[in-house]
Amino acid sequence: MGDIQIPKNKNILHSSIFNKTLRSWQGLQCDITTRNLMYPVFIVDEDDSLQPISSMPGISRFGLNRLKEHLSSLVDKGLQSVLLFGVINNAFKDERGTHATSDKNPVLRAVLKLRSWFPDLIIACDVCLCAYTSHGHCGILEKDGTINNAASIKRLAEVSIAYAKAGAHIVAPSDMMDGRIAAIKQLLRENEFGNKVAVLSYTAKFASNLYGPFRDASKSAPAFGDRKCYQLPIESTGLALRAAARDIEEGADMLMVKPVLIYMDIVKQLKSRYPEYPMFVYQVSGEYAMIHYAAKAGAIDLRLVLTEILASLRRSGADVIITYFTLRY
Amino acid sequence: MGDIQIPKNKNILHSSIFNKTLRSWQGLQCDITTRNLMYPVFIVDEDDSLQPISSMPGISRFGLNRLKEHLSSLVDKGLQSVLLFGVINNAFKDERGTHATSDKNPVLRAVLKLRSWFPDLIIACDVCLCAYTSHGHCGILEKDGTINNAASIKRLAEVSIAYAKAGAHIVAPSDMMDGRIAAIKQLLRENEFGNKVAVLSYTAKFASNLYGPFRDASKSAPAFGDRKCYQLPIESTGLALRAAARDIEEGADMLMVKPVLIYMDIVKQLKSRYPEYPMFVYQVSGEYAMIHYAAKAGAIDLRLVLTEILASLRRSGADVIITYFTLRY
Amino acid sequence: MGDIQIPKNKNILHSSIFNKTLRSWQGLQCDITTRNLMYPVFIVDEDDSLQPISSMPGISRFGLNRLKEHLSSLVDKGLQSVLLFGVINNAFKDERGTHATSDKNPVLRAVLKLRSWFPDLIIACDVCLCAYTSHGHCGILEKDGTINNAASIKRLAEVSIAYAKAGAHIVAPSDMMDGRIAAIKQLLRENEFGNKVAVLSYTAKFASNLYGPFRDASKSAPAFGDRKCYQLPIESTGLALRAAARDIEEGADMLMVKPVLIYMDIVKQLKSRYPEYPMFVYQVSGEYAMIHYAAKAGAIDLRLVLTEILASLRRSGADVIITYFTLRY
Amino acid sequence: MGDIQIPKNKNILHSSIFNKTLRSWQGLQCDITTRNLMYPVFIVDEDDSLQPISSMPGISRFGLNRLKEHLSSLVDKGLQSVLLFGVINNAFKDERGTHATSDKNPVLRAVLKLRSWFPDLIIACDVCLCAYTSHGHCGILEKDGTINNAASIKRLAEVSIAYAKAGAHIVAPSDMMDGRIAAIKQLLRENEFGNKVAVLSYTAKFASNLYGPFRDASKSAPAFGDRKCYQLPIESTGLALRAAARDIEEGADMLMVKPVLIYMDIVKQLKSRYPEYPMFVYQVSGEYAMIHYAAKAGAIDLRLVLTEILASLRRSGADVIITYFTLRY
Amino acid sequence: MGDIQIPKNKNILHSSIFNKTLRSWQGLQCDITTRNLMYPVFIVDEDDSLQPISSMPGISRFGLNRLKEHLSSLVDKGLQSVLLFGVINNAFKDERGTHATSDKNPVLRAVLKLRSWFPDLIIACDVCLCAYTSHGHCGILEKDGTINNAASIKRLAEVSIAYAKAGAHIVAPSDMMDGRIAAIKQLLRENEFGNKVAVLSYTAKFASNLYGPFRDASKSAPAFGDRKCYQLPIESTGLALRAAARDIEEGADMLMVKPVLIYMDIVKQLKSRYPEYPMFVYQVSGEYAMIHYAAKAGAIDLRLVLTEILASLRRSGADVIITYFTLRY
Amino acid sequence: MGDIQIPKNKNILHSSIFNKTLRSWQGLQCDITTRNLMYPVFIVDEDDSLQPISSMPGISRFGLNRLKEHLSSLVDKGLQSVLLFGVINNAFKDERGTHATSDKNPVLRAVLKLRSWFPDLIIACDVCLCAYTSHGHCGILEKDGTINNAASIKRLAEVSIAYAKAGAHIVAPSDMMDGRIAAIKQLLRENEFGNKVAVLSYTAKFASNLYGPFRDASKSAPAFGDRKCYQLPIESTGLALRAAARDIEEGADMLMVKPVLIYMDIVKQLKSRYPEYPMFVYQVSGEYAMIHYAAKAGAIDLRLVLTEILASLRRSGADVIITYFTLRY
Ligand SMILES: [Zn+2]
Ligand SMILES: [Zn+2]
Ligand SMILES: [Zn+2]
Ligand SMILES: [Zn+2]
Ligand SMILES: [Zn+2]
Ligand SMILES: [Zn+2]
Repeated sequence: MGDIQIPKNKNILHSSIFNKTLRSWQGLQCDITTRNLMYPVFIVDEDDSLQPISSMPGISRFGLNRLKEHLSSLVDKGLQSVLLFGVINNAFKDERGTHATSDKNPVLRAVLKLRSWFPDLIIACDVCLCAYTSHGHCGILEKDGTINNAASIKRLAEVSIAYAKAGAHIVAPSDMMDGRIAAIKQLLRENEFGNKVAVLSYTAKFASNLYGPFRDASKSAPAFGDRKCYQLPIESTGLALRAAARDIEEGADMLMVKPVLIYMDIVKQLKSRYPEYPMFVYQVSGEYAMIHYAAKAGAIDLRLVLTEILASLRRSGADVIITYFTLRY
Repeated sequence: MGDIQIPKNKNILHSSIFNKTLRSWQGLQCDITTRNLMYPVFIVDEDDSLQPISSMPGISRFGLNRLKEHLSSLVDKGLQSVLLFGVINNAFKDERGTHATSDKNPVLRAVLKLRSWFPDLIIACDVCLCAYTSHGHCGILEKDGTINNAASIKRLAEVSIAYAKAGAHIVAPSDMMDGRIAAIKQLLRENEFGNKVAVLSYTAKFASNLYGPFRDASKSAPAFGDRKCYQLPIESTGLALRAAARDIEEGADMLMVKPVLIYMDIVKQLKSRYPEYPMFVYQVSGEYAMIHYAAKAGAIDLRLVLTEILASLRRSGADVIITYFTLRY
Repeated sequence: MGDIQIPKNKNILHSSIFNKTLRSWQGLQCDITTRNLMYPVFIVDEDDSLQPISSMPGISRFGLNRLKEHLSSLVDKGLQSVLLFGVINNAFKDERGTHATSDKNPVLRAVLKLRSWFPDLIIACDVCLCAYTSHGHCGILEKDGTINNAASIKRLAEVSIAYAKAGAHIVAPSDMMDGRIAAIKQLLRENEFGNKVAVLSYTAKFASNLYGPFRDASKSAPAFGDRKCYQLPIESTGLALRAAARDIEEGADMLMVKPVLIYMDIVKQLKSRYPEYPMFVYQVSGEYAMIHYAAKAGAIDLRLVLTEILASLRRSGADVIITYFTLRY
Repeated sequence: MGDIQIPKNKNILHSSIFNKTLRSWQGLQCDITTRNLMYPVFIVDEDDSLQPISSMPGISRFGLNRLKEHLSSLVDKGLQSVLLFGVINNAFKDERGTHATSDKNPVLRAVLKLRSWFPDLIIACDVCLCAYTSHGHCGILEKDGTINNAASIKRLAEVSIAYAKAGAHIVAPSDMMDGRIAAIKQLLRENEFGNKVAVLSYTAKFASNLYGPFRDASKSAPAFGDRKCYQLPIESTGLALRAAARDIEEGADMLMVKPVLIYMDIVKQLKSRYPEYPMFVYQVSGEYAMIHYAAKAGAIDLRLVLTEILASLRRSGADVIITYFTLRY
Repeated sequence: MGDIQIPKNKNILHSSIFNKTLRSWQGLQCDITTRNLMYPVFIVDEDDSLQPISSMPGISRFGLNRLKEHLSSLVDKGLQSVLLFGVINNAFKDERGTHATSDKNPVLRAVLKLRSWFPDLIIACDVCLCAYTSHGHCGILEKDGTINNAASIKRLAEVSIAYAKAGAHIVAPSDMMDGRIAAIKQLLRENEFGNKVAVLSYTAKFASNLYGPFRDASKSAPAFGDRKCYQLPIESTGLALRAAARDIEEGADMLMVKPVLIYMDIVKQLKSRYPEYPMFVYQVSGEYAMIHYAAKAGAIDLRLVLTEILASLRRSGADVIITYFTLRY
Repeated sequence: MGDIQIPKNKNILHSSIFNKTLRSWQGLQCDITTRNLMYPVFIVDEDDSLQPISSMPGISRFGLNRLKEHLSSLVDKGLQSVLLFGVINNAFKDERGTHATSDKNPVLRAVLKLRSWFPDLIIACDVCLCAYTSHGHCGILEKDGTINNAASIKRLAEVSIAYAKAGAHIVAPSDMMDGRIAAIKQLLRENEFGNKVAVLSYTAKFASNLYGPFRDASKSAPAFGDRKCYQLPIESTGLALRAAARDIEEGADMLMVKPVLIYMDIVKQLKSRYPEYPMFVYQVSGEYAMIHYAAKAGAIDLRLVLTEILASLRRSGADVIITYFTLRY
């Protein structure tokens, strides 16, 4: 064997990574600060209730009167934004999700309180019908069980206005109806919220198998059928790109990919096409479970792996990560 | 409120997804067949041994005499390729990893047998020194504990030749030394294997926290220090791109990204830049654990989530997935 | 006048900026942490000396014995890296810059000390001849006063080796000779520093009028002529692009633009073309003066403007900023 | 040490810069002629007044009767265009900025005069409300102090028409309201100025800290709050791109970036995306101060540095530079 | 007929061109200064000769003793660069063009004089063999009349060195042999002119029918055959692009297109691909004739059309224009 | 001197051009057939007149009764298309160009005849007002002499309809008013010519100095002022791009660049952006003169140069060339 060729200068990577500080210069855009995290909160009808969620160890649902205490310590540690979900008793549900805009809606009442308790906290409200409808679907249905898209987006716009009036900074439609961003923006503008409320679109929400614990937490599983007729097929890059083009044309202020753990290729592509829009990602309940249980079994180190995941999400293009782990950060 | 604007035709996505077959047309490149899976196998010094790996429930290490039975049923079900790792007793380890090229090396002996037992099975051999060195690092060290790159790549080339002579179809260097692909290719060509043995480069192998169970399985944790001076920083897209450019310039036949679960943005970018190279991804032991334990706890459905993950990996650009779950597929 | 048309939804920007947190989401890649700052330090021959620089109020030159105290407080506050310059008495200067590699060179002696005092501090050394040559030019001259490029890059490589042997993590050639990166890398590799010392190239160093105070600080003005035959013309984007292509081909680990204040278009273009290379920028002495004196006169607020400048540099693509203001950060 | 490799031919840059004429060929697009400069002029209510601005040494505010003399010498030297600002006594200010369109408005009266005195001089008028409103904000406010965007852009269109009728060639809205370009263009067309008055949009006006002396000069600081809800966040490339897309879609004839000194990356990107639109940049008062005071302190040479800055602005893509230094050019 | 639709705001172009200054902002990169012009000069063997060229009215050939007077007035008016051609008596011609490097070569003697007479004037020398060979071809021929490429480029490199030694700043090979740039650069570097002499490559020299008067002027028509085997086919964009890639790879400092009048699409494409290289264009003798005779016949206005042509050349990407009309500019 | 390096294989161009057929393969898209030529014809009021144009030797104006004979021989030789211009006696001119749509208009009468004489000949009609207005401008004027754009485009649409009704296949508006394509298309559609008449837009018609002989030919010079407020500035690439975007958005079927000789960079860019639109170019009268007079003086060979020019126009992207030389082709 003769002499081994030496590699070209430019192909020597070790000289760029032999030291911790040098390594850090290779990925400076991956930092996580409090601005990069948004905390999802489940709010129940019963104001005094605090309900641990058995399928998501460490996470609870809160009544209005238990919220201030829970969030205060987080805000003190720097929490900058929350995403609110309503968890509604079946008794209040009907075909149109009337409770979503009623005075007694726990989320609407919570927004008012949160604005006064934490004046600097950004309040985002998930906008959907599934938590409020008797059938558990995200839109208003035709008699044959299919979606009535026009009626649905009108109703979603009404819900958005209710949140805006209550004081939400951001409305975040997660329903995946066609045209909802335009409908919401139109109604926001007619109500003079056009330049005062932002719309965070669940742009690429896939029909994933990772939502199980969440549906438990939010009591929002559909009573029949599934959501594959409005959420995106998991194999489809193309529909994610079309959905993003749609939402941007209709006026979205920020975009979201959900779930994120196995959709980071989608995040990368959306951020590359639309670098001018802040990119949100939602680390869903199934992802939470995967990390939690593997760590509990000793197979991975929770802190190290969580740090690696958050850095990786930033690397792939995420600006803000919606995660239950905000609690521990 | 006036009439809600109707969305533009092109922004109506529901008409493309209201039916299962239509949905399937959105992601036809995501199929999984036996050609898309490669099965990693750990081979131990003791030929009669069968050692379940406690940190990877369901996965075992095999002695040479236990291998045929285990693989036969898989081959019968269509298994097309394996990736072999040696698990070596400490007694055989030294500074240069001499055992890697000795006649008694269990992998070398296994290759010979596997070629005769399963003539159509593709045999890939992981090429590294860490399983064979007393210090557990992937290269030969200087006295100060840093890597001697020139000596390391020469030794890795020697190991590759040994596998080639034993009959391996593919050598897969996982060491992350600079210039190893060129060194291996040079020696393969000098030994007339230039057109008969392929090199599958672990191009983007990150210094991840998801390797724990594997190191247990392969008994290859370093005795001191870590591998951050040669594996890629987890935040760095740039070094992954430079590493791929390097390996392709040096002659790699296929590329690999490892781990893959939170590196799918990297897979996407490498496949987009180099569509002409088959892309392998390695679903590592920590990923196995996350899926296994979350399913065991009932938070996710193993089969559905595994299917979603494999389809997503294909969507992101992976051609072949190296996974322990091949067993169950 | 009829009704004014209302703007399109996507053209309403106010809904993305009406609140501080929302605004922050528009520029998350602009954070400044200690990893983003490198501190330039002038070291004089007289070990006990501490010389305030009159043309750069607040900045001093230090002798070896005054260095530890000055840097300790900065390291305690998080300082991660320094860039060392020698300021040499004329008595030690000659045609070839012999003192640059002598045992008495204050920078070489400082590197040794700094490694022991601050084991985690990254030591970068500016590599040039101008501080050491009697004629004050950055290379070795022909008899007619023009540059002998071959002799110059050989000498610069020798100087780099001296720094590497003393313990520098980074050598940073600022001379702008053609081929110096390749020459330095070749010699580093022949001396087994190939994977242990990084080369930070002053890739786009312009023949600017903003270096005045620095030349005062480093006593490095040329005795005759100027540097326009080797530094880049200020109007030339093209030569900056060619210089970056050259340095990357020759093996640079990181790139630099200098000065930066009015060269941010160059930073943007180089970072866009070569995102895989960390981008350094040097906020030079004239920039320091412009900020300092305008603030002193009350025309601008130093802290606010400095913060705006640093954020803007990050926005344009800078990863690490070499600035005298590190002192105040 | 062996022989140093010689650099590749194409990597020798010195052969392109060893001589002054050769260097000049590298940046021919950076010339500054009178067509590349626009001169900002402050006009006060008192026609006989000439008020030196203490925070901008060398610059004054002029009453109508002092304008002809001041501008005559500049026009004789080649001045081709001016940008007019009104500086209004508080007594004339109200909530809607009524004085902006009154017969007594000094800018409107000045336009008429300037057209007759200097028939070839291009007259551009800054269009905003902040100099005319009692609250000092750039739009009409809601009761809660936020912007009423619809009312604001209607008012800005009215102001533009007033300038057009007086004889302005260009109206230049600096307010940063959404939709103002479309509103102004609509009204211009309804009044048959559609092909006779150009709109120069302050497209990317950042909420910078460099406006201090200007606000002093124009007496236009807001009475409460700041302008961060309508001017662009300094970290945001994305909103600058969205603003340019918006203004071009709405009909802008030329674009502007303001300030420019640390926003040259933005200039470069806008000019690259929209090369068909003339790019204006505004060298603001804080930039003037930085150059002025550093030169006064002897740290930089005013003429050399100013020349370098203007050439650099041209290099980055600026066609016309709005600068107080036009005076000295 | 109903109402005609009004055009969109952005489609109204008149508002950008209704005034002379506004129009000028649309094409600021088209200025012509003395730096944009290079003057071609024919030098004859007879030192006292001044020979008007009948086919190019207004242009003459000069002997060494008539040169100073002719050029002095042009240099006084700002002339910055000349391109020298030798016009050789047949008596001095041979197969290898020996006279090109002899002491008596009028161009070599002229370079020495010009450097002393006009120290700031850039001297470029056309490098070719056709003026010196008995057969009138641009290279050395095989016996069958085809080009011996290797011998030709070696000879061209020798000629270049002769010009470099005489003091030329630029050598400009017009021969269109393959590999001549590399050969010339290699020899320049071996003679230490590597960073002191620039190479201006006639990159895209087409086999045009517009060279007639020049061949008359330079007495360089081939004795047999034509130059279509080494000059580019007039229809070929592809070979022009390949030639530019070739010359840049081999080290050219600047590029040229010749002729230019009907090759402006080529100029545009080369400048777009290689913006980092100064682009020269040669307005050849046939172009001169077309302008001259049409003006003489009163069909066009010489000054207006010449101005339009020069501005158009700049618009298409030309940095420097080599033109006989420099005389009248 | 050592051995000269041999050029890389890919840099040897001679092997692609040493033979005529090989050369022809380099530019196959440059052929000229009768489909690539359109012949411009001037038609006068006096039906029996045949008027040689003194400033365009060889070209004449024809009365209706002289047309058939002249065109018959051309049609026999393959002529496929003509572009008709009216040359009108001053007596018939007024402010609105009434004669353009009168029954006596010689072009309208000619169209009818030509359709019957030459059923396969494509008839295109230049659409403008300048030949018909007393002031000689291309639109209807305001009292102050500026263009009334709305009235102009309405009138141009009326003229187009007249040509359509007479039987023209193509209307070709040359006026450069904003919005004329949309206006013409609207009226064509209202008259059911929407799918039967094509619009060939003079998209990029520059305010050139090459129109002199044509204005003589068509008696269409403006009585006062010039056309710089509606024709494009010669330096402006940007407005040509905006004009093409405008015309395509408004419905143009084909695009034109005029003149072409020094605007081939514009042709190239428009064809690259809009390859889906046939590109016409107009070789104007000044170009005709330049070729004619240079050939007449013996400086160029008419046939060879004309062939080179036509091939070059095709190379730059022209599909159809409108040229007076069609006569000789
Ligand atoms: Zn839902
Ligand atoms: Zn290893
Ligand atoms: Zn230096
Ligand atoms: Zn304002
Ligand atoms: Zn020649
Ligand atoms: Zn006309």
